[in-house]
Amino acid sequence: MSHYIVIEWKDGLVRMLDQRLLPQQVIYIETPSYHDVAEAIRNMTIRGAPSIGVAAAYGMALAAVHSPAADGAALRADLEQAAEVLRAARPTAANLFYAVDRVLGRVKQSSSNEPDELRRLALDESVVFTDENNWINMQIGLNALELVPDPAVFIHHCNTGPLATVEYGSALGIIHSAHQHGKKVFVYVDETRPRLQGARLTTWELKQMGVPHALIVDGASGYIMKTRHVDLVTVGCDRVAANGDTANKIGTYNLAIVARAHDVPFYVAAPTSSIDLSISTGAQIPIEERESAEVSQLGGEQITPAGTQVTNPAFDVTPAEYITAIVTEAGIAYPPYTRSLPEMVARSRQILAPSSNLGRTRS
Amino acid sequence: MSHYIVIEWKDGLVRMLDQRLLPQQVIYIETPSYHDVAEAIRNMTIRGAPSIGVAAAYGMALAAVHSPAADGAALRADLEQAAEVLRAARPTAANLFYAVDRVLGRVKQSSSNEPDELRRLALDESVVFTDENNWINMQIGLNALELVPDPAVFIHHCNTGPLATVEYGSALGIIHSAHQHGKKVFVYVDETRPRLQGARLTTWELKQMGVPHALIVDGASGYIMKTRHVDLVTVGCDRVAANGDTANKIGTYNLAIVARAHDVPFYVAAPTSSIDLSISTGAQIPIEERESAEVSQLGGEQITPAGTQVTNPAFDVTPAEYITAIVTEAGIAYPPYTRSLPEMVARSRQILAPSSNLGRTRS
Repeated sequence: MSHYIVIEWKDGLVRMLDQRLLPQQVIYIETPSYHDVAEAIRNMTIRGAPSIGVAAAYGMALAAVHSPAADGAALRADLEQAAEVLRAARPTAANLFYAVDRVLGRVKQSSSNEPDELRRLALDESVVFTDENNWINMQIGLNALELVPDPAVFIHHCNTGPLATVEYGSALGIIHSAHQHGKKVFVYVDETRPRLQGARLTTWELKQMGVPHALIVDGASGYIMKTRHVDLVTVGCDRVAANGDTANKIGTYNLAIVARAHDVPFYVAAPTSSIDLSISTGAQIPIEERESAEVSQLGGEQITPAGTQVTNPAFDVTPAEYITAIVTEAGIAYPPYTRSLPEMVARSRQILAPSSNLGRTRS
Repeated sequence: MSHYIVIEWKDGLVRMLDQRLLPQQVIYIETPSYHDVAEAIRNMTIRGAPSIGVAAAYGMALAAVHSPAADGAALRADLEQAAEVLRAARPTAANLFYAVDRVLGRVKQSSSNEPDELRRLALDESVVFTDENNWINMQIGLNALELVPDPAVFIHHCNTGPLATVEYGSALGIIHSAHQHGKKVFVYVDETRPRLQGARLTTWELKQMGVPHALIVDGASGYIMKTRHVDLVTVGCDRVAANGDTANKIGTYNLAIVARAHDVPFYVAAPTSSIDLSISTGAQIPIEERESAEVSQLGGEQITPAGTQVTNPAFDVTPAEYITAIVTEAGIAYPPYTRSLPEMVARSRQILAPSSNLGRTRS
């Protein structure tokens, strides 16, 4: 578990750490309104697919708990409206849609017309969703323990800690888990241009965890691998294709190539929800191009000549051949991924099936 | 020739473009004082080894021309003092020391005791030194023409244009030369963290040259090579070992590894003065580590938690095996570099020997 709260349900309110102000200020926002949660997702108070999902699930719970509806139909109508508002906050976030649908589905599937019973179901499902999410990330950290030597020197790209995932972290969770299990770890943190999630957020999280680390520019990873000892690279992912090709933050592909050139193992942390067996290769993953200003301005100030053209892809795709293994909540997938990834997805579905007990203890 | 003056001698003054203000402001500093030239080197108004060398040579000329000395001995003493001041401005810049020694040597070797004759010699040597420098960079651009296809898409790292080299540029000079010879060129410009020479200076220079380009973060080069067409990479160098290992701005080594993974030729532009045959491999090149604030602050503002450890190497060493060819003023060196580099150095010494006519027309 992390040393700080990222998002929590607290006495009918949602409490969220404002990630835009980190690392300079640690400020929480507390709200009873799902509209505020939608705005927090839109304006990046909350970021990272899992954290966005949990925020959206709690947003649905807020909508249910604070709805003035006097009967089940009115409450269901209020939840449909909240779902629309929350989905619109980040229309490309698959995890947000999934979270909203989970809570909405639980309420719609109930035969009850008692608004309080439906409120209870909505809140319960948001808690179940959060518990599942936290279990998944905890499991990734535990499953990866066998891959981490002691001592271990990591290079990590972007931010994949509790800030992005609520409680345990994915790729950063692997580091945290090794640290908590008594291994001596050190992390070189890629600053991760252009948005500097490494410099702003990962350094802050490692500091809270008490994990020693040093910040580097993204272009220095080869120098570090060549002149110091590096044991492994860990990164997260946005989407993994059936063959193991992995989309992640821009710069990941360069890091994978550089790791291969130095025979440094390259591990991807991936909840099975990120594995998309419907696409055969990474070529089918569309890459978003983001606004020029992320590169041409720093702190709101123009650094390039006016009108400089910028090519600013948000993500890149690392071919499966560069990936040593993909760590999921259901185990470690090794090549050939076309065989191991479907196994992981099937195993996770078994564990997380609605009929299982996991996360249901509060129902 | 470039479309803008970087450093020039003008009626007893030295005129320098203030590179710290680019690209937002184009401001020139004019001064009769070698102390101001030393300060401009120290505070990075002037940067890039060749530009620093030329500034230092002109600084020596200023010292001679404006010295009140009434005889040769007094003038030589004034020049010794100026040499000391200029050398102290950047004590690790080999080119600065070489430039100062060239002008000082010319004056000391003269048997004249006429201060005006010695003043003329000092100014002449600074002009000869500048002409040689410009010829060397022009030749690099011309020699490289056979390596550049038409059309050609480049990736370029750091800044190696006239700003760094006075008139033609080294690696950027290759691009400029191809453009001026009618080839259709496009350049992806690495922003070059941490000091952002690519974003601040190379974009500005390419704009002046009329060369189309797009700025990218350093971590995007693999994505660009994989998803767009890239023909070649060109970079400059700080120092080349006898075996071809090349020290250059941090990020160069990553770019070389990524280029190799995509079968993109990787060319180094190197005046033979950067080739150090006295060191057998790049392992003998010391790498300066620079201050943390270059990475942990942006525009003077802290972006990391207070006290975050930073590893900030200024340079890295690209092993010769990643370098397709090294372009010098004396021709193109191909592997094995242990054979081709000494040939280039010998050929350049022949061409630039004091007995040759090059640059001596103004004597």
